[in-house]
Amino acid sequence: MKELEDRIRKEGRVIGDSILKVDSFLNHQVDPVLMDHIGAEFADLFHGVTITKVLTLEASGIAPALAAAYHLGVPLIFAKKSGSHNIGSDVYTSVVHSFTYNRDYTVQVSRAYLASDDRVLIVDDFLANGAAIRGMMELIAKAGASCAGVGVVVEKAFQDGGQQLRSSGVRVESLARIASMKDGEIQFVSEENTGN
Amino acid sequence: MKELEDRIRKEGRVIGDSILKVDSFLNHQVDPVLMDHIGAEFADLFHGVTITKVLTLEASGIAPALAAAYHLGVPLIFAKKSGSHNIGSDVYTSVVHSFTYNRDYTVQVSRAYLASDDRVLIVDDFLANGAAIRGMMELIAKAGASCAGVGVVVEKAFQDGGQQLRSSGVRVESLARIASMKDGEIQFVSEENTGN
Repeated sequence: MKELEDRIRKEGRVIGDSILKVDSFLNHQVDPVLMDHIGAEFADLFHGVTITKVLTLEASGIAPALAAAYHLGVPLIFAKKSGSHNIGSDVYTSVVHSFTYNRDYTVQVSRAYLASDDRVLIVDDFLANGAAIRGMMELIAKAGASCAGVGVVVEKAFQDGGQQLRSSGVRVESLARIASMKDGEIQFVSEENTGN
Repeated sequence: MKELEDRIRKEGRVIGDSILKVDSFLNHQVDPVLMDHIGAEFADLFHGVTITKVLTLEASGIAPALAAAYHLGVPLIFAKKSGSHNIGSDVYTSVVHSFTYNRDYTVQVSRAYLASDDRVLIVDDFLANGAAIRGMMELIAKAGASCAGVGVVVEKAFQDGGQQLRSSGVRVESLARIASMKDGEIQFVSEENTGN
């Protein structure tokens, strides 16, 4: 998605070789018009696929996921991190390892909002090692529902989460795929001559 | 806002005399079309007021605040709860007391996204005692910016947060004002014969 790649190139800040800060438009300050375009793009990409719910994880997935749900015409559910909220005991849970903070946390979704006939599109802001997305897939599996695909705003393609998900048969659509951030320079997969 | 009151009446669940669960459409599962209407309503209510940013607090404020920011044509910022994120040390912070969990937590916003010439509309999902909103007002004050008003989806008018804010001269617009939830019955302020 050229608009997104341009924005990342213009405003993204690279820290070290693997941290990309996009908090001027995606996950702290948020550009609502860009979110709308992102939501429309996900709806286009998954056009023709049966989707009954969009699922994301609080907090930074909510903005792009809400826009996707709007354009798909389905409800959004945001999974909550355990301890931070009282959503009752009637929940599906899964444990996610955060590589950023090197700790595990539990994510949960109320059983009332995921049913066995739901076909769920997962949307998140980032895909790196894929831990958060696998956690959400576990929630969907526990509900007996099915995952219709995964929509990601920014994929760090130099980490193996996306590859692992695709290898296991999950359809993953990333609006910007970063091939490398070496020496502070952001290179997108589309710019490589590897045929990706 | 009649659409919202109808939805609360239909799907809201009252627990005890003061807890209202609206997690089927507002703060766990989210109806994106309702959010869009809520955002449009805030933009209408604050029409003619200079607003340069919308500020909310993660996580459940993000959906209505994003919609408001979209309709106002300005960026959204969501303040983060300390410890859960690494947004650097160059932040404005304030301490908020959670009555639900009976503990204090720190909220923060990067200095980069609040400037002294910003006129900020605060948007949140709930207003009860007003602690979260006062915390956000403190962030705005620390930036030397000004608060253009407060937009709330659901106000528990039987708690005194809204009254306190209005008494101090803050314009507070609530889309649904709940007068009481005694015996599990939700009564809106608009239904009272008190002239409110």
